[in-house]
Amino acid sequence: MEYQYIKNPTTIENRSFEIITEELGEKNNRFDEKTGKVVKRVIHTTADFQYADLMEFHPKAIEMGITALKEGCNIYADTQMVYSGINKKRLSGLGGYVCNFVHDPEVAKEAKVRGITRSMISIEKAMADESIRIYAIGNAPTALFNLIEMINEGMQKPNLVIGVPVGFVGAVESKEALTKLEVPYIVTRGRKGGSGVAAAIVNALLYMI
Amino acid sequence: MEYQYIKNPTTIENRSFEIITEELGEKNNRFDEKTGKVVKRVIHTTADFQYADLMEFHPKAIEMGITALKEGCNIYADTQMVYSGINKKRLSGLGGYVCNFVHDPEVAKEAKVRGITRSMISIEKAMADESIRIYAIGNAPTALFNLIEMINEGMQKPNLVIGVPVGFVGAVESKEALTKLEVPYIVTRGRKGGSGVAAAIVNALLYMI
Repeated sequence: MEYQYIKNPTTIENRSFEIITEELGEKNNRFDEKTGKVVKRVIHTTADFQYADLMEFHPKAIEMGITALKEGCNIYADTQMVYSGINKKRLSGLGGYVCNFVHDPEVAKEAKVRGITRSMISIEKAMADESIRIYAIGNAPTALFNLIEMINEGMQKPNLVIGVPVGFVGAVESKEALTKLEVPYIVTRGRKGGSGVAAAIVNALLYMI
Repeated sequence: MEYQYIKNPTTIENRSFEIITEELGEKNNRFDEKTGKVVKRVIHTTADFQYADLMEFHPKAIEMGITALKEGCNIYADTQMVYSGINKKRLSGLGGYVCNFVHDPEVAKEAKVRGITRSMISIEKAMADESIRIYAIGNAPTALFNLIEMINEGMQKPNLVIGVPVGFVGAVESKEALTKLEVPYIVTRGRKGGSGVAAAIVNALLYMI
Protein backbone atom coordinates (compact mmCIF):
# COMPACT_ATOMS: atom_id res chain seq x y z
CA MET A 1 0.00 0.00 0.00
CA GLU A 2 1.24 3.42 -1.02
CA TYR A 3 0.32 6.38 1.19
CA GLN A 4 -0.22 9.83 -0.30
CA TYR A 5 1.42 12.55 1.76
CA ILE A 6 3.44 15.72 1.37
CA LYS A 7 7.14 14.93 1.61
CA ASN A 8 8.78 18.33 1.10
CA PRO A 9 9.61 19.96 4.46
CA THR A 10 9.14 23.55 3.24
CA THR A 11 5.73 22.73 1.77
CA ILE A 12 4.74 20.99 5.01
CA GLU A 13 5.75 23.98 7.12
CA ASN A 14 4.08 26.55 4.87
CA ARG A 15 0.84 24.58 4.71
CA SER A 16 0.91 24.14 8.51
CA PHE A 17 1.16 27.89 9.10
CA GLU A 18 -1.66 28.52 6.61
CA ILE A 19 -3.91 26.13 8.53
CA ILE A 20 -2.96 27.71 11.86
CA THR A 21 -3.72 31.22 10.54
CA GLU A 22 -7.06 30.06 9.10
CA GLU A 23 -8.15 28.35 12.29
CA LEU A 24 -7.05 31.19 14.56
CA GLY A 25 -9.68 33.29 12.78
CA GLU A 26 -10.46 36.50 14.68
CA LYS A 27 -7.77 35.74 17.26
CA ASN A 28 -5.19 36.75 14.63
CA ASN A 29 -6.18 40.36 15.38
CA ARG A 30 -4.97 40.10 18.97
CA PHE A 31 -1.36 40.00 17.86
CA ASP A 32 0.89 42.34 15.92
CA GLU A 33 2.99 40.79 13.17
CA LYS A 34 5.90 39.72 15.38
CA THR A 35 3.99 38.39 18.40
CA GLY A 36 1.71 36.59 15.93
CA LYS A 37 4.70 34.79 14.47
CA VAL A 38 5.79 33.63 17.92
CA VAL A 39 2.31 32.44 18.90
CA LYS A 40 1.87 30.57 15.62
CA ARG A 41 5.21 28.82 15.97
CA VAL A 42 4.22 27.63 19.43
CA ILE A 43 0.92 26.31 18.06
CA HIS A 44 2.87 24.67 15.23
CA THR A 45 5.00 22.84 17.82
CA THR A 46 2.15 21.74 20.10
CA ALA A 47 -0.96 21.63 17.85
CA ASP A 48 -2.59 23.33 20.82
CA PHE A 49 -4.57 26.48 19.97
CA GLN A 50 -5.00 27.26 23.65
CA TYR A 51 -1.60 28.94 23.49
CA ALA A 52 -3.26 31.85 21.66
CA ASP A 53 -5.02 32.56 24.97
CA LEU A 54 -2.12 31.67 27.28
CA MET A 55 0.79 33.60 25.81
CA GLU A 56 1.66 36.97 27.23
CA PHE A 57 4.40 39.31 26.02
CA HIS A 58 6.10 42.16 27.85
CA PRO A 59 5.83 45.13 25.42
CA LYS A 60 9.60 45.17 24.82
CA ALA A 61 10.17 41.40 24.84
CA ILE A 62 10.50 40.74 21.13
CA GLU A 63 12.49 43.88 20.34
CA MET A 64 14.93 43.24 23.21
CA GLY A 65 15.27 39.57 22.31
CA ILE A 66 15.96 40.25 18.66
CA THR A 67 18.47 43.00 19.49
CA ALA A 68 20.39 40.70 21.83
CA LEU A 69 20.41 37.90 19.26
CA LYS A 70 21.66 40.26 16.55
CA GLU A 71 24.48 41.30 18.89
CA GLY A 72 25.56 37.66 19.20
CA CYS A 73 24.35 37.00 22.75
CA ASN A 74 24.32 33.51 24.22
CA ILE A 75 21.19 31.75 25.43
CA TYR A 76 20.71 29.77 28.60
CA ALA A 77 18.46 26.72 28.19
CA ASP A 78 17.23 24.99 31.35
CA THR A 79 17.17 21.50 29.85
CA GLN A 80 18.91 19.46 27.22
CA MET A 81 15.60 19.28 25.33
CA VAL A 82 15.40 23.07 25.04
CA TYR A 83 19.01 23.02 23.91
CA SER A 84 18.23 20.42 21.25
CA GLY A 85 15.18 22.26 19.99
CA ILE A 86 16.88 25.58 19.33
CA ASN A 87 18.15 26.14 15.79
CA LYS A 88 21.83 26.35 16.65
CA LYS A 89 22.91 26.84 13.04
CA ARG A 90 20.93 30.09 12.89
CA LEU A 91 22.16 31.15 16.29
CA SER A 92 25.82 30.50 15.52
CA GLY A 93 25.41 32.50 12.31
CA LEU A 94 24.75 35.48 14.60
CA GLY A 95 27.69 34.61 16.84
CA GLY A 96 25.80 33.04 19.76
CA TYR A 97 25.50 29.61 21.30
CA VAL A 98 23.25 27.80 23.78
CA CYS A 99 24.44 27.02 27.31
CA ASN A 100 23.09 24.37 29.64
CA PHE A 101 24.86 23.13 32.75
CA VAL A 102 22.32 20.61 34.08
CA HIS A 103 24.44 17.62 33.07
CA ASP A 104 27.67 19.10 34.41
CA PRO A 105 28.97 16.57 37.00
CA GLU A 106 29.93 19.37 39.40
CA VAL A 107 26.42 20.78 39.22
CA ALA A 108 24.97 17.35 40.05
CA LYS A 109 27.34 17.05 43.01
CA GLU A 110 26.48 20.46 44.44
CA ALA A 111 22.74 19.83 43.98
CA LYS A 112 23.04 16.66 46.03
CA VAL A 113 24.97 18.38 48.81
CA ARG A 114 22.56 21.33 49.02
CA GLY A 115 19.43 19.18 48.50
CA ILE A 116 18.04 21.38 45.73
CA THR A 117 17.54 20.81 42.01
CA ARG A 118 20.38 20.68 39.50
CA SER A 119 18.55 23.30 37.46
CA MET A 120 18.82 25.77 40.34
CA ILE A 121 22.58 25.35 40.65
CA SER A 122 22.91 25.51 36.89
CA ILE A 123 21.13 28.86 36.67
CA GLU A 124 23.39 30.33 39.35
CA LYS A 125 26.33 29.42 37.15
CA ALA A 126 24.69 31.06 34.13
CA MET A 127 23.94 34.32 35.97
CA ALA A 128 27.64 34.75 36.63
CA ASP A 129 28.26 34.86 32.85
CA GLU A 130 27.34 38.21 31.28
CA SER A 131 27.44 36.93 27.70
CA ILE A 132 24.21 35.02 28.48
CA ARG A 133 21.43 37.54 27.93
CA ILE A 134 18.43 35.41 27.02
CA TYR A 135 17.04 32.75 29.37
CA ALA A 136 14.77 30.03 28.00
CA ILE A 137 13.17 28.14 30.90
CA GLY A 138 10.89 25.41 29.59
CA ASN A 139 10.92 22.84 32.31
CA ALA A 140 11.83 23.74 35.88
CA PRO A 141 9.81 26.24 37.93
CA THR A 142 12.64 26.05 40.48
CA ALA A 143 15.05 27.40 37.85
CA LEU A 144 12.70 30.26 37.04
CA PHE A 145 12.18 31.11 40.74
CA ASN A 146 15.91 31.07 41.28
CA LEU A 147 16.49 33.32 38.28
CA ILE A 148 13.84 35.76 39.55
CA GLU A 149 15.44 35.83 42.99
CA MET A 150 18.84 36.59 41.54
CA ILE A 151 17.43 39.39 39.37
CA ASN A 152 15.73 40.79 42.49
CA GLU A 153 19.03 40.66 44.34
CA GLY A 154 20.52 42.95 41.69
CA MET A 155 22.53 40.46 39.65
CA GLN A 156 22.55 40.99 35.88
CA LYS A 157 19.25 41.79 34.20
CA PRO A 158 18.68 39.59 31.15
CA ASN A 159 17.47 41.13 27.87
CA LEU A 160 14.70 38.56 27.74
CA VAL A 161 13.35 35.81 29.96
CA ILE A 162 11.28 33.17 28.20
CA GLY A 163 9.44 31.71 31.18
CA VAL A 164 7.37 28.75 30.06
CA PRO A 165 7.89 25.97 32.62
CA VAL A 166 5.22 23.28 32.49
CA GLY A 167 3.60 21.48 35.35
CA PHE A 168 1.60 21.18 38.49
CA VAL A 169 3.93 22.34 41.26
CA GLY A 170 5.22 25.89 41.04
CA ALA A 171 4.84 26.46 37.29
CA VAL A 172 1.86 28.85 37.54
CA GLU A 173 3.36 30.74 40.50
CA SER A 174 6.82 31.10 38.95
CA LYS A 175 5.38 32.60 35.76
CA GLU A 176 3.17 34.93 37.77
CA ALA A 177 6.22 36.13 39.70
CA LEU A 178 8.18 36.70 36.48
CA THR A 179 5.54 39.04 35.07
CA LYS A 180 5.89 41.25 38.17
CA LEU A 181 9.58 41.94 37.50
CA GLU A 182 11.03 44.87 35.58
CA VAL A 183 12.43 42.59 32.91
CA PRO A 184 11.23 41.74 29.37
CA TYR A 185 9.43 38.39 29.45
CA ILE A 186 7.43 36.00 27.35
CA VAL A 187 5.25 33.60 29.38
CA THR A 188 2.54 31.00 28.95
CA ARG A 189 -0.02 31.59 31.67
CA GLY A 190 -1.26 28.54 33.58
CA ARG A 191 0.26 25.09 33.77
CA LYS A 192 1.11 24.61 30.11
CA GLY A 193 4.46 25.21 28.47
CA GLY A 194 7.48 22.96 28.13
CA SER A 195 10.81 22.49 26.43
CA GLY A 196 9.31 22.40 22.94
CA VAL A 197 7.47 25.65 23.60
CA ALA A 198 10.62 27.37 24.90
CA ALA A 199 12.62 26.28 21.85
CA ALA A 200 9.83 27.31 19.47
CA ILE A 201 9.81 30.84 20.93
CA VAL A 202 13.59 31.19 20.51
CA ASN A 203 13.38 29.86 16.94
CA ALA A 204 10.53 32.24 16.07
CA LEU A 205 12.79 35.15 17.12
CA LEU A 206 15.72 33.73 15.14
CA TYR A 207 13.59 33.35 12.00
CA MET A 208 12.57 37.03 12.18
CA ILE A 209 16.19 38.16 11.81
CA MET B 1 11.51 39.11 48.29
CA GLU B 2 11.69 35.43 49.16
CA TYR B 3 9.44 33.03 47.25
CA GLN B 4 8.02 29.94 48.91
CA TYR B 5 8.23 26.88 46.69
CA ILE B 6 9.10 23.21 46.80
CA LYS B 7 12.74 22.70 45.86
CA ASN B 8 13.18 18.94 46.19
CA PRO B 9 12.78 17.23 42.80
CA THR B 10 11.36 13.96 44.18
CA THR B 11 8.76 15.84 46.22
CA ILE B 12 7.82 17.91 43.15
CA GLU B 13 7.37 14.82 40.99
CA ASN B 14 5.38 12.89 43.59
CA ARG B 15 3.06 15.82 44.29
CA SER B 16 2.59 16.35 40.54
CA PHE B 17 1.45 12.76 40.02
CA GLU B 18 -0.92 13.04 43.02
CA ILE B 19 -2.53 16.12 41.46
CA ILE B 20 -2.81 14.41 38.07
CA THR B 21 -4.45 11.33 39.61
CA GLU B 22 -6.87 13.50 41.60
CA GLU B 23 -7.88 15.59 38.61
CA LEU B 24 -8.23 12.62 36.26
CA GLY B 25 -11.07 11.48 38.57
CA GLU B 26 -13.22 8.78 36.96
CA LYS B 27 -10.97 8.67 33.92
CA ASN B 28 -8.44 6.76 36.03
CA ASN B 29 -10.71 3.73 35.59
CA ARG B 30 -10.16 3.69 31.84
CA PHE B 31 -6.60 2.51 32.26
CA ASP B 32 -4.97 -0.52 33.80
CA GLU B 33 -2.00 0.13 36.09
CA LYS B 34 0.64 0.22 33.35
CA THR B 35 -1.22 2.21 30.69
CA GLY B 36 -2.26 4.60 33.48
CA LYS B 37 1.38 5.22 34.30
CA VAL B 38 2.15 6.07 30.68
CA VAL B 39 -0.85 8.40 30.31
CA LYS B 40 -0.01 10.20 33.56
CA ARG B 41 3.60 10.73 32.56
CA VAL B 42 2.44 12.29 29.28
CA ILE B 43 0.11 14.61 31.21
CA HIS B 44 2.98 15.40 33.57
CA THR B 45 5.09 16.47 30.57
CA THR B 46 2.42 18.56 28.84
CA ALA B 47 0.00 19.65 31.60
CA ASP B 48 -2.62 18.69 29.05
CA PHE B 49 -5.35 16.38 30.34
CA GLN B 50 -6.70 15.90 26.84
CA TYR B 51 -4.10 13.17 26.41
CA ALA B 52 -6.28 10.94 28.61
CA ASP B 53 -8.76 10.98 25.71
CA LEU B 54 -6.22 10.90 22.88
CA MET B 55 -3.90 8.06 23.85
CA GLU B 56 -4.50 4.64 22.39
CA PHE B 57 -2.55 1.47 23.15
CA HIS B 58 -2.28 -1.72 21.13
CA PRO B 59 -3.09 -4.50 23.66
CA LYS B 60 0.47 -5.84 23.56
CA ALA B 61 2.29 -2.50 23.31
CA ILE B 62 3.49 -2.10 26.88
CA GLU B 63 4.41 -5.75 27.38
CA MET B 64 6.35 -5.89 24.09
CA GLY B 65 8.06 -2.57 24.81
CA ILE B 66 9.16 -3.58 28.29
CA THR B 67 10.38 -6.99 27.08
CA ALA B 68 12.50 -5.39 24.36
CA LEU B 69 13.95 -2.84 26.80
CA LYS B 70 14.80 -5.58 29.29
CA GLU B 71 16.61 -7.43 26.51
CA GLY B 72 18.78 -4.38 25.89
CA CYS B 73 17.26 -3.21 22.62
CA ASN B 74 18.15 0.12 21.05
CA ILE B 75 15.61 2.87 20.41
CA TYR B 76 15.25 5.00 17.32
CA ALA B 77 14.30 8.63 18.03
CA ASP B 78 13.17 10.75 15.10
CA THR B 79 14.57 14.02 16.48
CA GLN B 80 17.35 15.27 18.69
CA MET B 81 14.70 16.50 21.13
CA VAL B 82 13.29 12.98 21.58
CA TYR B 83 16.85 11.76 22.01
CA SER B 84 17.49 14.38 24.68
CA GLY B 85 14.28 13.66 26.55
CA ILE B 86 14.85 9.92 26.99
CA ASN B 87 16.47 8.85 30.25
CA LYS B 88 19.65 7.44 28.74
CA LYS B 89 21.13 6.48 32.10
CA ARG B 90 18.23 4.09 32.72
CA LEU B 91 18.39 2.81 29.17
CA SER B 92 22.13 2.16 29.24
CA GLY B 93 21.67 0.30 32.54
CA LEU B 94 19.63 -2.18 30.51
CA GLY B 95 22.22 -2.31 27.73
CA GLY B 96 20.47 -0.09 25.17
CA TYR B 97 21.06 3.28 23.59
CA VAL B 98 19.14 5.83 21.51
CA CYS B 99 19.87 6.30 17.79
CA ASN B 100 19.10 9.32 15.69
CA PHE B 101 20.55 10.01 12.28
CA VAL B 102 18.81 13.29 11.38
CA HIS B 103 21.98 15.34 11.92
CA ASP B 104 24.20 12.90 10.06
CA PRO B 105 25.78 14.94 7.21
CA GLU B 106 25.29 12.07 4.73
CA VAL B 107 21.61 11.93 5.59
CA ALA B 108 21.27 15.68 4.97
CA LYS B 109 23.03 15.28 1.62
CA GLU B 110 20.83 12.41 0.46
CA ALA B 111 17.68 14.25 1.58
CA LYS B 112 18.66 17.22 -0.57
CA VAL B 113 19.36 15.05 -3.61
CA ARG B 114 16.11 13.08 -3.30
CA GLY B 115 14.04 16.14 -2.28
CA ILE B 116 12.50 14.44 0.76
CA THR B 117 12.90 14.99 4.50
CA ARG B 118 16.02 14.06 6.42
CA SER B 119 13.83 12.13 8.83
CA MET B 120 12.72 9.82 6.02
CA ILE B 121 16.27 8.97 5.02
CA SER B 122 17.20 8.56 8.66
CA ILE B 123 14.49 6.01 9.28
CA GLU B 124 15.58 3.96 6.28
CA LYS B 125 19.01 3.74 7.87
CA ALA B 126 17.48 2.64 11.18
CA MET B 127 15.36 -0.10 9.61
CA ALA B 128 18.51 -1.72 8.28
CA ASP B 129 19.73 -2.18 11.90
CA GLU B 130 18.04 -5.08 13.71
CA SER B 131 19.22 -4.01 17.16
CA ILE B 132 16.73 -1.11 16.95
CA ARG B 133 13.42 -2.60 18.08
CA ILE B 134 11.53 0.42 19.46
CA TYR B 135 10.73 3.49 17.31
CA ALA B 136 9.80 6.75 19.00
CA ILE B 137 8.42 9.16 16.40
CA GLY B 138 7.49 12.46 18.01
CA ASN B 139 7.89 14.95 15.26
CA ALA B 140 7.77 13.91 11.62
CA PRO B 141 4.68 12.32 10.05
CA THR B 142 6.90 11.64 7.03
CA ALA B 143 9.14 9.45 9.21
CA LEU B 144 6.15 7.54 10.51
CA PHE B 145 4.71 7.03 7.01
CA ASN B 146 8.08 5.84 5.78
CA LEU B 147 8.39 3.42 8.69
CA ILE B 148 4.89 2.08 8.01
CA GLU B 149 5.71 1.58 4.33
CA MET B 150 8.86 -0.33 5.16
CA ILE B 151 7.01 -2.56 7.63
CA ASN B 152 4.39 -3.20 4.92
CA GLU B 153 7.14 -4.13 2.50
CA GLY B 154 8.22 -6.89 4.89
CA MET B 155 11.27 -5.27 6.44
CA GLN B 156 11.82 -5.90 10.16
CA LYS B 157 8.81 -5.61 12.45
CA PRO B 158 9.59 -3.44 15.49
CA ASN B 159 8.56 -4.61 18.96
CA LEU B 160 6.88 -1.27 19.54
CA VAL B 161 6.18 1.86 17.51
CA ILE B 162 5.48 4.98 19.55
CA GLY B 163 3.73 7.07 16.92
CA VAL B 164 3.03 10.51 18.31
CA PRO B 165 3.97 13.04 15.60
CA VAL B 166 2.45 16.46 16.14
CA GLY B 167 1.05 18.79 13.56
CA PHE B 168 -1.28 19.88 10.85
CA VAL B 169 -0.03 18.09 7.75
CA GLY B 170 -0.01 14.29 7.84
CA ALA B 171 0.13 13.76 11.60
CA VAL B 172 -3.46 12.55 11.98
CA GLU B 173 -3.26 10.37 8.87
CA SER B 174 0.09 8.80 9.75
CA LYS B 175 -1.15 7.77 13.20
CA GLU B 176 -4.36 6.38 11.71
CA ALA B 177 -2.29 4.30 9.28
CA LEU B 178 -0.09 2.98 12.09
CA THR B 179 -3.06 1.63 14.06
CA LYS B 180 -4.06 -0.47 11.01
CA LEU B 181 -0.77 -2.39 10.99
CA GLU B 182 -0.07 -5.69 12.70
CA VAL B 183 2.49 -4.12 15.01
CA PRO B 184 2.31 -3.03 18.68
CA TYR B 185 1.77 0.72 18.83
CA ILE B 186 1.12 3.60 21.18
CA VAL B 187 -0.44 6.66 19.52
CA THR B 188 -1.99 9.99 20.36
CA ARG B 189 -5.06 10.42 18.17
CA GLY B 190 -5.49 13.76 16.44
CA ARG B 191 -2.97 16.50 15.86
CA LYS B 192 -1.35 16.54 19.27
CA GLY B 193 1.83 14.78 20.30
CA GLY B 194 5.45 15.85 19.99
CA SER B 195 8.99 15.12 21.04
CA GLY B 196 8.29 15.59 24.74
CA VAL B 197 5.36 13.18 24.54
CA ALA B 198 7.45 10.54 22.74
CA ALA B 199 10.23 10.79 25.33
CA ALA B 200 7.74 10.69 28.21
CA ILE B 201 6.26 7.42 26.89
CA VAL B 202 9.70 5.80 26.61
CA ASN B 203 10.61 6.99 30.11
CA ALA B 204 7.34 5.70 31.56
CA LEU B 205 8.24 2.24 30.22
CA LEU B 206 11.79 2.51 31.56
CA TYR B 207 10.55 3.50 35.05
CA MET B 208 8.31 0.39 35.17
CA ILE B 209 11.33 -1.92 34.90
